[in-house]
Amino acid sequence: MNEKIRVAICGYGNLGKGVEKAIAKNGDMELKCIITRREPDSIKPASEVPVISVSEALSSDKWISTIDVVIMCGGSAKDLPEQVPQFVELYNTVDSFDTHAKIPEYFDKVNDIALDNDTLAIISVGWDPGLFSKARLEANSILSGSVNYTFWGIGVSQGHSDAIRRIEGVKDAVQLTVPVEEAMERVRKGENPTLSAREMHSRECYVSTEKNASIRQIEEMITSMPNYFADYDTTVKFVCDEMVQGVRGNLPHGGSVISSGTTGDGNKQAIEYSLKLESNPEFTGSVLVAYARAAYRMSKNESGAKTVFDVAPAMLSPLTQEEMLKKL
Amino acid sequence: MNEKIRVAICGYGNLGKGVEKAIAKNGDMELKCIITRREPDSIKPASEVPVISVSEALSSDKWISTIDVVIMCGGSAKDLPEQVPQFVELYNTVDSFDTHAKIPEYFDKVNDIALDNDTLAIISVGWDPGLFSKARLEANSILSGSVNYTFWGIGVSQGHSDAIRRIEGVKDAVQLTVPVEEAMERVRKGENPTLSAREMHSRECYVSTEKNASIRQIEEMITSMPNYFADYDTTVKFVCDEMVQGVRGNLPHGGSVISSGTTGDGNKQAIEYSLKLESNPEFTGSVLVAYARAAYRMSKNESGAKTVFDVAPAMLSPLTQEEMLKKL
Repeated sequence: MNEKIRVAICGYGNLGKGVEKAIAKNGDMELKCIITRREPDSIKPASEVPVISVSEALSSDKWISTIDVVIMCGGSAKDLPEQVPQFVELYNTVDSFDTHAKIPEYFDKVNDIALDNDTLAIISVGWDPGLFSKARLEANSILSGSVNYTFWGIGVSQGHSDAIRRIEGVKDAVQLTVPVEEAMERVRKGENPTLSAREMHSRECYVSTEKNASIRQIEEMITSMPNYFADYDTTVKFVCDEMVQGVRGNLPHGGSVISSGTTGDGNKQAIEYSLKLESNPEFTGSVLVAYARAAYRMSKNESGAKTVFDVAPAMLSPLTQEEMLKKL
Repeated sequence: MNEKIRVAICGYGNLGKGVEKAIAKNGDMELKCIITRREPDSIKPASEVPVISVSEALSSDKWISTIDVVIMCGGSAKDLPEQVPQFVELYNTVDSFDTHAKIPEYFDKVNDIALDNDTLAIISVGWDPGLFSKARLEANSILSGSVNYTFWGIGVSQGHSDAIRRIEGVKDAVQLTVPVEEAMERVRKGENPTLSAREMHSRECYVSTEKNASIRQIEEMITSMPNYFADYDTTVKFVCDEMVQGVRGNLPHGGSVISSGTTGDGNKQAIEYSLKLESNPEFTGSVLVAYARAAYRMSKNESGAKTVFDVAPAMLSPLTQEEMLKKL
């Protein structure tokens, strides 16, 4: 009987809670503690494991010798760029860093520290970046010259929801990203169309307001917001708080990567990888847990920063080699 | 500038020709020769490379020192079990062995020989087994306890077409495997239904006959054929030779692996991996070529038999690490 993989979660928001639930479903893993930058006493985790501070995790030999992998569940804007370099000095880590433009620089920094300390960090794990990046790379490797189209949704975009909530007079808001079905069909048919942002996705906003707020003004501010909404067909619906909560639900999301190319004398070939998720944080948490298994195993022979591109499928699986061969 | 990967193709049927076309689309690879168990002079390859016999390939130091990987394109019934053990004594190989029940035994045999000779063989590469096996393994690794459903088609099943052609009085035949759309929708909705063979696929047969053949008798023999047709809703259409050819086309095929599971308190999550192929042999050939790249690269540090489960996505790609990070 193998020993269980001993895991810690750093950051106990939606994603951290999703990771906690996923660990409970994986019999080869054991959650040892939650690490937080908040006051540890203020957190009562569902799994009743100890809650410790970031400074304790970074200084206590007891924890450093107990934990095989730390799953980093903070935000990409501030938490991860600060915390991952600190943790990877002492622990193997997995994170979901998703600020696309900064990934190469982040990779280099984490890689240097991990190599110096003989630890291993898998960065930018999740579904996009992550599983979708992998789907695009694999499809392009198989179908040389193929073109990738990524459609997101129907699902809640937290960034767009936040942008609406920052408008004065808005009480609560949730934004649904909706892929344009007609565009998806054209891509699936192998037409290889050139598509604008507007042709690929539309945006639906559900907004509740403070008393006396100017509905016309709020709608105008949303639909004209650069980067977020101006380039899309955006509809705004003013509703009660309960309805905003209802649309938000468990943060459903999903999407498809469709890779379309030709072989030989123009035979069309298409590869599609799709996700349909009732809970985005719980799914992303499950992805992080599978890659935590890989990080622990790979750390026995390697060190440095890795991405989903470097992880062989067998590393993700709790099955033995023999069981896997039977599944081929 | 890197040297090109030097490739040979063993077996010049539909699949071998598909591989030849795929190599031409990959700038980092170079086809050096075709290897055949037929009379070499009888083959005129499109790419005008030399054609040599199996015995020459297995005995000539010139070829052994020239070729980085041999892509084995023979059949799983007879060719591969005989040829791969011979070739892997001397060459790195990639093959599409697909006799599911015999894979563990085949793996062990090839693994022993490859380890003894410091070569590397990736076995059972293609889309099923191959990409679909990988999709199932990855989905189950992420969604613990998830259930996989595999739907094939709409596409030509060569095994079923062959079975019909062996019936007396049949001149030519092609069989289309058709997935039952209603069953796919139930699976996509996360119902996790228990489905019989008949509920998942139907079979359409297009048959041309010899003069004076008994149509009623042929239809009866097809629809009652055990394993192949008896367990399915099978329709038989008697048509002219040209129509059989038209349905056959470039051997279109495809299919979907849908993996359905839950996280947390029952939130449904689904992962779907789909292929829509106008030419099955050209697509399978393209998959083999990407894995040939991986076999060559992995052979620098490892030996033995490997499967798609052991190959990290980065190994498949012609891109540099830097280019890949930008694509994340």
